[in-house]
Amino acid sequence: MDQHAPPAWLDRILSRRRVLAGSAAGLAVPAIAGAAAAPRGRPEELATGALRRVTLYAEALPGGLFGYGLAPGQATVPGPVLEMWEGDTLEVTLVNTTTQRLSIHPHGVDYDTASDGSPLNASFNNAGETRTYVWRSREMVAAAGRRYMPGNAGYWHYHDHAMGTDHGTAGIAKGLYGALIVRRRGDILPARQFTVVFNDMMINNLMAPHTPMFEANLGERVEWIAIGHGNTFHTFHLHAHRWADNRTGMLEGPADPSAVIDNKDLNPGSSFGFQVLAGDGVGPGVWMYHCHVQFHSDGGMVGLFLVRNADGSMPPGAEEAIHRFRGHTHQHGG
Amino acid sequence: MDQHAPPAWLDRILSRRRVLAGSAAGLAVPAIAGAAAAPRGRPEELATGALRRVTLYAEALPGGLFGYGLAPGQATVPGPVLEMWEGDTLEVTLVNTTTQRLSIHPHGVDYDTASDGSPLNASFNNAGETRTYVWRSREMVAAAGRRYMPGNAGYWHYHDHAMGTDHGTAGIAKGLYGALIVRRRGDILPARQFTVVFNDMMINNLMAPHTPMFEANLGERVEWIAIGHGNTFHTFHLHAHRWADNRTGMLEGPADPSAVIDNKDLNPGSSFGFQVLAGDGVGPGVWMYHCHVQFHSDGGMVGLFLVRNADGSMPPGAEEAIHRFRGHTHQHGG
Amino acid sequence: MDQHAPPAWLDRILSRRRVLAGSAAGLAVPAIAGAAAAPRGRPEELATGALRRVTLYAEALPGGLFGYGLAPGQATVPGPVLEMWEGDTLEVTLVNTTTQRLSIHPHGVDYDTASDGSPLNASFNNAGETRTYVWRSREMVAAAGRRYMPGNAGYWHYHDHAMGTDHGTAGIAKGLYGALIVRRRGDILPARQFTVVFNDMMINNLMAPHTPMFEANLGERVEWIAIGHGNTFHTFHLHAHRWADNRTGMLEGPADPSAVIDNKDLNPGSSFGFQVLAGDGVGPGVWMYHCHVQFHSDGGMVGLFLVRNADGSMPPGAEEAIHRFRGHTHQHGG
Repeated sequence: MDQHAPPAWLDRILSRRRVLAGSAAGLAVPAIAGAAAAPRGRPEELATGALRRVTLYAEALPGGLFGYGLAPGQATVPGPVLEMWEGDTLEVTLVNTTTQRLSIHPHGVDYDTASDGSPLNASFNNAGETRTYVWRSREMVAAAGRRYMPGNAGYWHYHDHAMGTDHGTAGIAKGLYGALIVRRRGDILPARQFTVVFNDMMINNLMAPHTPMFEANLGERVEWIAIGHGNTFHTFHLHAHRWADNRTGMLEGPADPSAVIDNKDLNPGSSFGFQVLAGDGVGPGVWMYHCHVQFHSDGGMVGLFLVRNADGSMPPGAEEAIHRFRGHTHQHGG
Repeated sequence: MDQHAPPAWLDRILSRRRVLAGSAAGLAVPAIAGAAAAPRGRPEELATGALRRVTLYAEALPGGLFGYGLAPGQATVPGPVLEMWEGDTLEVTLVNTTTQRLSIHPHGVDYDTASDGSPLNASFNNAGETRTYVWRSREMVAAAGRRYMPGNAGYWHYHDHAMGTDHGTAGIAKGLYGALIVRRRGDILPARQFTVVFNDMMINNLMAPHTPMFEANLGERVEWIAIGHGNTFHTFHLHAHRWADNRTGMLEGPADPSAVIDNKDLNPGSSFGFQVLAGDGVGPGVWMYHCHVQFHSDGGMVGLFLVRNADGSMPPGAEEAIHRFRGHTHQHGG
Repeated sequence: MDQHAPPAWLDRILSRRRVLAGSAAGLAVPAIAGAAAAPRGRPEELATGALRRVTLYAEALPGGLFGYGLAPGQATVPGPVLEMWEGDTLEVTLVNTTTQRLSIHPHGVDYDTASDGSPLNASFNNAGETRTYVWRSREMVAAAGRRYMPGNAGYWHYHDHAMGTDHGTAGIAKGLYGALIVRRRGDILPARQFTVVFNDMMINNLMAPHTPMFEANLGERVEWIAIGHGNTFHTFHLHAHRWADNRTGMLEGPADPSAVIDNKDLNPGSSFGFQVLAGDGVGPGVWMYHCHVQFHSDGGMVGLFLVRNADGSMPPGAEEAIHRFRGHTHQHGG
């Protein structure tokens, strides 16, 4: 992969992120910062137990990469954010436009063996094949005493489980992964979403200075989804922001015992998410997110979170910081 | 170790697992799926503060391995699941039948320096020596405000701390480890228990296709105890099932803020446990559990969780999947 | 660095730890074991929103190390424990007495870009330069439903972000790090504090038998702050004591779902803290703390926690254990 120029699919990611990634495939995400807890959208998106369908296209990308996309020629790394409410079912029709065996395997949702996405269960797409995978979700169920068997709400992810090896090692290495969110009724919806995948020594298969620069205006509610892949251990750190180490990243009332953190292990197959108000209490500016393993941050596992002024204008010093980070390759996305 | 044929002690493990591991050494575990919260068993097992005694035999096994067992000639890797209620005391008499210095060191319970199991405290068995270690437990105690100093309930483990080095590095590498559960009053008891130890690049000192295949019938309450050992970082992933990232793996009511996960770091010295209803919401079939570090799953850190039909019969496709996984070495255990 | 003799700055650490580290720079920490929840101290330390000022001196130390100190010639590895109540502001004036670029970057608190401590934001001290960094904190704020955006309370840390690389890799490797605690109103204050930093293959840049021996009397409330740095993965284990895996290490009432653990991942950039009553339920004696990665504990990542009798006298066997651990280099600290 050429580390020195942003590939074409990155431009697509950056421009698509201005539109809200979630809106295409699942929830309608309101474009209002600090959105209220009540979900908004078309009526059918509010019903519990909704059945939604999405078609994903697995495609080869320049530089030996592969990606999932919502339309032909639109594949990106990572793939689109897919979202569900607890109770929903998502039918994912995967069109394999490549010459290799591949699949889509989800974390966190319910699926039968035919939708496992693994060669073990003969659940994959051969070259050129189209196959439908069904992902279901449900709410928690009382067990005994005050205990409940958990529902499916969480910051999850999906990835290939069939390219290269029976565990999809080649597919994952080359970009076949994305975020999957299952929300519980009452969850707060964000204004913007950022997917950060630590994949071996890269972020979203890129390295600084080409890693994504995420953008928000001061005070906007921003959702981060962090996913680990590959073979290396990592820790995700975000400057000047923090979150509760629990399901939502917020505290569930003053008695919530959760630790509040700004650095968390992000190892292969794990994922977590959280929401912050961009620049809240710290002001606008350019803030780093990076792997805190020193040789990894020094080696390029670092990106920028640009918090603009509330009116969208650039805060003092931001241009200089971005320039410093990117050298003469000055470009914005978000 | 011969990776290509299941060793004799594995047969013993597999057959013993049909009997409930916990019943021999601690709690009586009812053989009823989804067992109610109230513990059942002989009256003396229900008393808070019970004193129980167990004798463990540390033995050499074929292939250079070592194991703990509940009777002479019965050592396994991992050793038997030991269980207590908070408040109980367990006296472990360790018979060292080997020619090497070794010990037993528990996590999570209370013990004085003589029961530390460490050479630092001169707490170990010389070759051929018998020594008694005393493990105590207690309930949480109010501290100040609404805070409590925690009790001992947890999914813990025990291991050698004296063979090879003062930290038991050789003993652990060769199989001297097992699960230790301390339950809180009101905890739900499982129908089956599976111990999974990620020990360097092996699972229970085995590699695919010889890793344990755990079995349950659809809907049975199954308890997983996951333990990390050795020198390598790992993440434990289970297909089609998930758990709350807290003490029990279940949510403590709708306000429990815990994340729900299906992939968790499993590093040396750490352990966690959780209960799932086998195949609940996803159906019967063969589901993988594996390390999600790609080179580790490709290298053999993967095993099978066979969820049979509710009546114990094999679901469609399961035989084929097992055959695919094991090649011609078709064998069941659980 | 000479691993065989305790360096001069270690003597300073050990002797200073007898005085309470927190008292110099932030909270007044009562010298009473099991201190009540109500904070004690001078009135200005009890006010919400207090502004405190501290001057830190970054200095070169023998053996190629660097440290932060509260007065000239007093730098230590790790630096002093800095403390705040949620709502407080801490102005840190950093005097760079060295010939290298360096900075101080905090985790967990609020700061604007000028106090980021990163070259990205041109926030660092050139050689010989003095610069003031402002760290703010606040309480949780209601978001929607029962959710709150978290405040800043936590067991955090600070470190260089500018020496050697733009991520402070050389500064961190050589000792420029320390603990930062932000407490929530009502938190229980400890009698003693121990900072343990796993920095690559060392503890506080030392290796056994020169790692710190922490001391307390039986029943004293002891606070551990564990911090990870460098490039290697680690797990922190403490013998015979355990804590809840949440913000305080204690349970927030009987319904707190947190796991109770005695072994936790401690990877670069992460930190956690907890309080235990020294030797509670297990008695006085010498207890190990160590990295549970076997090659790391064998290689020197191990230290001692000496729990004296309640009257401060040495318990039976303790001298022998210390002697065994340290060989003929018999020394105490705490």
